[in-house]
Amino acid sequence: VDEVTLPPLFDAHVHLRDGRMLEIVAPYTDRCCSRCVIMPNTQPPLDTPLRLVSYRQAVAHSLTRTQPLYTFKISLEQTQHLNWLSQFQSLGAIAGKLYPEGVTTNSAHTGISRDVLLSLDRQTNPLRPLLAEMERLGLVLCLHGELPGEFCLDRESAFLEVVDELLALFPSLRIVLEHITTVDAVRYVTSHAAKDDRLACTLTLHHLLLTLDHVVGDALDPHSFCKPVAKAPEDREALVRLALADFSQVFLGSDSAPHLCSSKEHQGCAGIFSAPVLVERLVQFFEEYDALALLPDFAVRRAEHFYRLPSLDLPPLVLVRRPFLVPETIQGIRPFGAGETLPWTLHQE
Amino acid sequence: VDEVTLPPLFDAHVHLRDGRMLEIVAPYTDRCCSRCVIMPNTQPPLDTPLRLVSYRQAVAHSLTRTQPLYTFKISLEQTQHLNWLSQFQSLGAIAGKLYPEGVTTNSAHTGISRDVLLSLDRQTNPLRPLLAEMERLGLVLCLHGELPGEFCLDRESAFLEVVDELLALFPSLRIVLEHITTVDAVRYVTSHAAKDDRLACTLTLHHLLLTLDHVVGDALDPHSFCKPVAKAPEDREALVRLALADFSQVFLGSDSAPHLCSSKEHQGCAGIFSAPVLVERLVQFFEEYDALALLPDFAVRRAEHFYRLPSLDLPPLVLVRRPFLVPETIQGIRPFGAGETLPWTLHQE
Repeated sequence: VDEVTLPPLFDAHVHLRDGRMLEIVAPYTDRCCSRCVIMPNTQPPLDTPLRLVSYRQAVAHSLTRTQPLYTFKISLEQTQHLNWLSQFQSLGAIAGKLYPEGVTTNSAHTGISRDVLLSLDRQTNPLRPLLAEMERLGLVLCLHGELPGEFCLDRESAFLEVVDELLALFPSLRIVLEHITTVDAVRYVTSHAAKDDRLACTLTLHHLLLTLDHVVGDALDPHSFCKPVAKAPEDREALVRLALADFSQVFLGSDSAPHLCSSKEHQGCAGIFSAPVLVERLVQFFEEYDALALLPDFAVRRAEHFYRLPSLDLPPLVLVRRPFLVPETIQGIRPFGAGETLPWTLHQE
Repeated sequence: VDEVTLPPLFDAHVHLRDGRMLEIVAPYTDRCCSRCVIMPNTQPPLDTPLRLVSYRQAVAHSLTRTQPLYTFKISLEQTQHLNWLSQFQSLGAIAGKLYPEGVTTNSAHTGISRDVLLSLDRQTNPLRPLLAEMERLGLVLCLHGELPGEFCLDRESAFLEVVDELLALFPSLRIVLEHITTVDAVRYVTSHAAKDDRLACTLTLHHLLLTLDHVVGDALDPHSFCKPVAKAPEDREALVRLALADFSQVFLGSDSAPHLCSSKEHQGCAGIFSAPVLVERLVQFFEEYDALALLPDFAVRRAEHFYRLPSLDLPPLVLVRRPFLVPETIQGIRPFGAGETLPWTLHQE
């Protein structure tokens, strides 16, 4: 096969940032996605309708082909303003994103604390009215599934009890466990989701390819550093099996998360900018496992189904087997696989 | 207690580097150590007698009070020059250091391969004549105990079978498993060393204080990155218990390993420069566990005993309870605990 056609991707988890960074990175999503779910951890975060209004305008200037699907950042303040949730929805938000405190970019002071996450069983828990309203409105709950206060490699596993509680408390709430990285989470999702279609998970491209060895196994590599941090080889293998499984509740969420090289190298920011290689590297990955036929389901159809959106009738992406040299940097941002030559090139008019 | 006196330390594992770096860092060891065992992974490495001759001269210019104990870097080339081993010894080497290939600074092309490490049982293994000669001469074998080719967190545990083989093959060879970091290694050393006084291990200061959370748990921190990489909380706790145990075959080896900040931040070099805070932070640590009485054993006497060296009659170090602000950098090198204020200050005339 020297040519692959593919419907444009549904990237169910992407960071487009704002300001100048938005202008730089949005075209890389725009070139290959029909839709994208945009994460709200900008600075300041998208946690009020007013902020989402102005962010929408900025995104509208930067995306020409991709349909943006917005999220808002869940904050306890919203419990005092439950009417905001329907406003978010009117503005194009399909989901609220819950960031536990301190576990990733821009969550240090604006995330949800461990105490709140572990006390959902109490009537007085401040998240409960908010989540009940999201449930009523049909807004999806997107989870960064790491429990603060645990050892970094244990945070995801420890968070699963929070997911249990959420599923039990809100019987109609649909939940996406984002960017899972561990054998434990794979087992959890496959065993629960099989009997409960409200639960799905996303997989990133980079967690299918990296382990902790890429980060600390040789020289320290800030450009392989992301949250959740890549885990052990057996974890990566479980993610690969899940990506290749015929399982309707797992789909692509790239978590493409650009930072300037200087921020990666001097401030140790977590995040991998995968948008510039996303479709090329996914085709390579699925071809290596002789599973190209599964790619449209994994990267497009299942997310459409979970988010209850119709398929779009768009011209397909065309990839040709021609070497694609990944640039070392793109305006000061290092893309995933920088300097590598990939076998597939996206044909662009 | 507002004053602590202590015999000058025996640092059984330190990197003094060479050239300008040696001049910068040696005074920090010199101010608080009676003896130090100097690691040989300079560039080029100390793997021929000629190189040790010139290195000795450089060190002699930089240390005024500390007695240097040299090591040579084990290389397969030495198998063709077994007479070099007694020459190393005449030049002041008390041990040969074995670096597995690629596991730490300057071992990428000059370390011992996994294949060689895993085939010690074969008569033709090229390390065997070398180790037999070291055994005959009474040279200690110092091990960087990580097996190349394993997942970073498993390398130390996987190396223990090599130690087993070495102990079995060379019945008089004395072995130090350097800078251990895992529950597995603690168990191994305590169970083996209890019945075999040929085996000892060193502990660093920083592995008593750090876990992987310091490296990747929040923002990526190149200044907490070392090899072996710091592990899980339960591993650190096992190291702390070992440091506080009345166990003669564990002693201090700081593994103080300076790199320029620029190398740490841009090339991801592994190593923590702990010499500038070594004695102050050790006193703080042992005081916190109400175990100051054990510190002379841990940090001086046991290494003297293992290396069969007489105690030196030197004036004691005097530490006073007075805030000590650790500098952010020392000529471009970031010391361990940079910017922190420690409770103990070394009194220097």
